[in-house]
Amino acid sequence: MAELTVKVPTIEQTEYRIHIGNGLLETLLERIESQFPGQKPFIITDQNLVDAGHIKTLLNRQNVPVYTITPPGEGSKHIQTVVSILEAMEKAYLGRDSVVIAVGGGTVGDIAGFAASLFKRGVPVVQVPTTSLAQADSSVGGKTGVDSSLSKNAYGVFWHPASVFMDVDTLSTLNDRDFRAGLVESIKHAMILDAAYFEYWEQNIEAILAKDTQVLAKLALKNCQIKGHVVQIDPQEKNMRRILNYGHTIGHAVESASQLELLHGEAVAIGLIGAARIELAMGIGDQARLDRTESLLKKLGVPMTIPSNITGETVLDLIKRDKKAVDKWPKFVLINQLGQVHQKDGQWAVDVEQVTVKQVIDSLY
Amino acid sequence: MAELTVKVPTIEQTEYRIHIGNGLLETLLERIESQFPGQKPFIITDQNLVDAGHIKTLLNRQNVPVYTITPPGEGSKHIQTVVSILEAMEKAYLGRDSVVIAVGGGTVGDIAGFAASLFKRGVPVVQVPTTSLAQADSSVGGKTGVDSSLSKNAYGVFWHPASVFMDVDTLSTLNDRDFRAGLVESIKHAMILDAAYFEYWEQNIEAILAKDTQVLAKLALKNCQIKGHVVQIDPQEKNMRRILNYGHTIGHAVESASQLELLHGEAVAIGLIGAARIELAMGIGDQARLDRTESLLKKLGVPMTIPSNITGETVLDLIKRDKKAVDKWPKFVLINQLGQVHQKDGQWAVDVEQVTVKQVIDSLY
Repeated sequence: MAELTVKVPTIEQTEYRIHIGNGLLETLLERIESQFPGQKPFIITDQNLVDAGHIKTLLNRQNVPVYTITPPGEGSKHIQTVVSILEAMEKAYLGRDSVVIAVGGGTVGDIAGFAASLFKRGVPVVQVPTTSLAQADSSVGGKTGVDSSLSKNAYGVFWHPASVFMDVDTLSTLNDRDFRAGLVESIKHAMILDAAYFEYWEQNIEAILAKDTQVLAKLALKNCQIKGHVVQIDPQEKNMRRILNYGHTIGHAVESASQLELLHGEAVAIGLIGAARIELAMGIGDQARLDRTESLLKKLGVPMTIPSNITGETVLDLIKRDKKAVDKWPKFVLINQLGQVHQKDGQWAVDVEQVTVKQVIDSLY
Repeated sequence: MAELTVKVPTIEQTEYRIHIGNGLLETLLERIESQFPGQKPFIITDQNLVDAGHIKTLLNRQNVPVYTITPPGEGSKHIQTVVSILEAMEKAYLGRDSVVIAVGGGTVGDIAGFAASLFKRGVPVVQVPTTSLAQADSSVGGKTGVDSSLSKNAYGVFWHPASVFMDVDTLSTLNDRDFRAGLVESIKHAMILDAAYFEYWEQNIEAILAKDTQVLAKLALKNCQIKGHVVQIDPQEKNMRRILNYGHTIGHAVESASQLELLHGEAVAIGLIGAARIELAMGIGDQARLDRTESLLKKLGVPMTIPSNITGETVLDLIKRDKKAVDKWPKFVLINQLGQVHQKDGQWAVDVEQVTVKQVIDSLY
């Protein structure tokens, strides 16, 4: 037998900038043109952004092709939407010299980033997150993908943005439920890495809910610092990045079981309570911490119990199908104290027995 | 406006082994198990391989899930097949701890590699090419993807194999047309990088067509050396790798226009003649070289003219939609002499006027 070795060379470090402010949309196309001279922009957004007038502001009478995802929201986050976008890009004669601009919430960003990664084996994507969820979380870090009929984010790739622009003005047109649910990831960031930020949250919850732009810009910056810190240590989610999954193992299962009745952040809120109860059961939690978490989430006005039409068995079965499951059971991210993830044997995600998780799920009704 | 920078760290060099020989299938699963201890194999193949008995040989009474692409061939190379595979993997409760084994021709390898890259944001793929085309070309280099309704390989990603196993025994069951067409990529390798290898081809064409296993193993090794050399210099096709595209710009367009009537290699054979005629028109070709190429392709028994039911306008329009097109027109890879690519200003692909290409297309009937 003959053998030979093929080397896949090193891919050098790259970087991207996150820009946070207000009134950014008006001049965004010029900024992108100067960053990507000669490359053809293609905007991907959804009906909500069009209806709110943000796409008109962005276009500013320029002639740039726009793909509008309809209906907006998680229900469109499947492979057919990606295929439809790819076909639209091809019909517009776009080539490798194009740049995708994703304007919208997490769903738009995930779909558009995924489409950009696949088109002609990859073109750059500029993320323009317009929701509290996307600004806190999904626009930074390079995860892209869509849901399958069985589970969330089942298919996807890592495709880092070439730039991120966060215009907090866009939050003013966001409906209240989405706004509140989106902030849950921000609280999660505080819980895993920054106790002082958790206190800032407790002290400023009224200003946040009143959409004070200064406070919102501060949240966006803080979230990007925390998330950027984690993803640049572990961009491919080989180890530390898993801490961002805090509250998500139960959260994803509940979200999936709810058939999109629950928003992502709402399901994660339930998952955060679930994680805190697992911590109590395993002797690494304390009641005072659980009380503070429940109090903050309650003020935020997000659900903290599993809807009664979802059975515990369904949630457990979906946990077994978790993307990170090995032998049909995932590890869990837990915290020792606010701002500090529980580690065991150098691992950021640890074993939790199925019976413990089952009891906690039962307690979440 | 606040700004911060996120670094995407260096991805270190990796490598993979190509194993070439005969009788490899019998022990392949054990080899893969020792390379990926504890990881769950999932075989993707097509009906041809099942019918030829190769999957039975591979499985050797072991219980490993198999996805069989039907019908076999380029007609199944679309996104729906990928979605169907991903769903089958999910229904089998596979997680990130799985390893995809792609057993088949270029179509199976492209589809399976693409599916592996997307499943749970990426699991390893072992390529087991079983056709002359896949052994010469597609199993090495990490290109994966599927066709759109408009063009070939329109969507995909780079996903390098974790290992490649080439069992030349599998060529014995390949039908004659596929076998001959698949060898065109091998001749292309000789034309762009190795004049001595072109002479070897001229001297051994009878032994090759008689499927002499020693000669076939030598071809496989030579092809892997040439392709491996190119892809490890330029894995992402940023520059030099484009030379592998010799004959493919016209070839892809003709293949696409033929609605799968022509095999990939057959279309590339037409494209190689097209490239040689462009070289003549631009003063970098010579008639003797064109004669040798035509003579060799004729002995190989592949078509050298565009089918009469395809119009020249259709071919030209499809060239404008080429994946590598910029401003609706691609650059072309050409050669100065056998084994030497024509370079201009350090570029491996050069400008050719549309009128020249149009005349050459007209001459290919």
